[in-house]
Amino acid sequence: MNPSTPPSKSDSVARCGAAVLTIDLAAVVANWRTLRAQVAPAVCAAVVKADAYGLGALQVAPALARAGCTTFFVALLDEGVALRPYLPGAEIIALLGALPGCEAEHTHHRIVPVLNSLGDIGRWQAYARTTGQRQPAWIHLDTGMNRLGLGADDARRLAAEPERLAGLTLRGWISHLACADQPDHPLSAAQLGRFHQALARLPAGLRSLAGSSGLWRSRAFHLDLVRPGAALYGLNPTPETTNPMHPVITLYSRILQVRTVDTGATVGYGAACVVARPSRIATIAVGYADGALRSLANRGHVFIDRQPASVVGRVSMDLMTIDVTDLPQALVQPGGWVELIGPNRNVDAAAADAGTIGYEILTGLSRRHHRVWLSPATGDQWTS
Amino acid sequence: MNPSTPPSKSDSVARCGAAVLTIDLAAVVANWRTLRAQVAPAVCAAVVKADAYGLGALQVAPALARAGCTTFFVALLDEGVALRPYLPGAEIIALLGALPGCEAEHTHHRIVPVLNSLGDIGRWQAYARTTGQRQPAWIHLDTGMNRLGLGADDARRLAAEPERLAGLTLRGWISHLACADQPDHPLSAAQLGRFHQALARLPAGLRSLAGSSGLWRSRAFHLDLVRPGAALYGLNPTPETTNPMHPVITLYSRILQVRTVDTGATVGYGAACVVARPSRIATIAVGYADGALRSLANRGHVFIDRQPASVVGRVSMDLMTIDVTDLPQALVQPGGWVELIGPNRNVDAAAADAGTIGYEILTGLSRRHHRVWLSPATGDQWTS
Repeated sequence: MNPSTPPSKSDSVARCGAAVLTIDLAAVVANWRTLRAQVAPAVCAAVVKADAYGLGALQVAPALARAGCTTFFVALLDEGVALRPYLPGAEIIALLGALPGCEAEHTHHRIVPVLNSLGDIGRWQAYARTTGQRQPAWIHLDTGMNRLGLGADDARRLAAEPERLAGLTLRGWISHLACADQPDHPLSAAQLGRFHQALARLPAGLRSLAGSSGLWRSRAFHLDLVRPGAALYGLNPTPETTNPMHPVITLYSRILQVRTVDTGATVGYGAACVVARPSRIATIAVGYADGALRSLANRGHVFIDRQPASVVGRVSMDLMTIDVTDLPQALVQPGGWVELIGPNRNVDAAAADAGTIGYEILTGLSRRHHRVWLSPATGDQWTS
Repeated sequence: MNPSTPPSKSDSVARCGAAVLTIDLAAVVANWRTLRAQVAPAVCAAVVKADAYGLGALQVAPALARAGCTTFFVALLDEGVALRPYLPGAEIIALLGALPGCEAEHTHHRIVPVLNSLGDIGRWQAYARTTGQRQPAWIHLDTGMNRLGLGADDARRLAAEPERLAGLTLRGWISHLACADQPDHPLSAAQLGRFHQALARLPAGLRSLAGSSGLWRSRAFHLDLVRPGAALYGLNPTPETTNPMHPVITLYSRILQVRTVDTGATVGYGAACVVARPSRIATIAVGYADGALRSLANRGHVFIDRQPASVVGRVSMDLMTIDVTDLPQALVQPGGWVELIGPNRNVDAAAADAGTIGYEILTGLSRRHHRVWLSPATGDQWTS
């Protein structure tokens, strides 16, 4: 692919798009296969919460299911309900559990809740009793996030009072690493130790601790099931070294206008950029409403045909301005394309520019982009 | 309204919502009427780009049309096409202009482009010639943003070569203030002067310069038409003084869990928060995938029944943790509601916490929230 040409440029549907986001489902599937091979014989699930980290759960999850993935994690019941018709045979698990009053909807759509406290377990048990049927559940043991899950005391209490699990079909136990992205962080080993310690006193079930980063740290973290999300979508799960994953997305935007400005001219809102030399400034059709964070102001970079250009001035809602003074004039013309994310600037680099992490860049991607999903089966494209 | 109770709590559809966003269309309409009165006899249009700043253009724009608004601004053709069926009689104007090859779609859906350069004008004229009909257009004169629009030289050239406008039905002229949110910023008066100077040599048409802030600065900025966006949605157009607008949105999230942690415990990813005293930490069901920016980590505030609680640790994709040690225990229970935006914490304050502006908070609001639009006509609610 010519880096200055998004794959969809030739696509007639994209003709009127001012910004085009491509999502390579073949790359997502390849990433899942890489992770599966890395952790076998452990099960490799997929985390598709937050609309598959912004990339389209209804496109991503079925592609993974066709590749053999059988277990999907969402955050909320509603996310699972939306996916169920596309994943008729899969196990769908809601990490945030069942809200009071929503239990029957979980059963109806077969969305298994993760129970995060003794209170959650008690409510789910009471619900099972009203249905006269055993109800499935995962249980979350907190080992150091202090966010969700049973603490050590509650886990001991659960072990001492096994009748609390009566009426439940226990699918498994999960916990969550706080510092897996930092190699050899002592908290990771401590969390693994606490998880084993708690599980030793509890009934058997699948054990799941690692996500995208944890699964690369040591086989000891694999246990029975891993839950990658970010790595599927091309983020680097091992920030200290080369990214083992394929890139998944590209984001290109159109140049709307190129103007010449004199020294001392101000650019954009708040007159926040004062031009220090005679400059050419290009205005491109992407802004913070499209997920280009305002924190990119005066410090982000984009690329035109492999050549970098700096963001100048504030990022507007629908527009950004870039300094193209040092680029060949022929390269920078209205209607041309600018790479915001692509072969020259991956999501992690874009996030570093914006002072955040790739996860927030992905989940911030807007519905306003013209989206093109590249099919894993045929290389064909379909668009929305 | 009890501040700890979002309006939708009683709504059965919201029962399973983990986070609930309410959008008060009556307040949007009231704000538009306030602005219209402020600028009469100038026309008060409405800016509904970026999905009405994240609040739902398909809900907001028809409510404004019923109240008498006849002119709507979007950024992109696609946004106008989506709105056209809901605004059959309105003028819809696309600020970013017509992309090459998309001209016929503009005509088909009656989306009037803003022409931002001599090149745009030439292309639109060529298109008009192929249709054999006059085509409507607005023209953008840059007066100091250096973002889009004809610069002073191009405006002079256009004045000297009026045949460039042959075949066009000129609807009007727009320009855009860079520093209208700062009272008495000298650039505003300079931009107004440049606008008048350019217009003196150009054919007559409606003149539009001010948006939400500019229209409060001086009657001189009203001209023929104003284009408020942010003020319609409750953001303060006059940051130096009391907000003259009604608040429009509330955002509440559920408490999922409350836990007691000891001194020295770490909370969340990266163990980024070390607890300095025995604490109670509540985990709530909203994260950066929902638009709660990661920059709120360790510095944001939320409210429970009028009492503030600090964000502790990093913001996760689906969750935030807050310190509720100093709040009455009875007030902080799983299933209870936390105010992220509401009577105690408006959008501008939430933005200040996150180091950004209210605009970015609004456009970042997620589709994942359960949304309740409060109807202007009846006070009834409808939900999606």
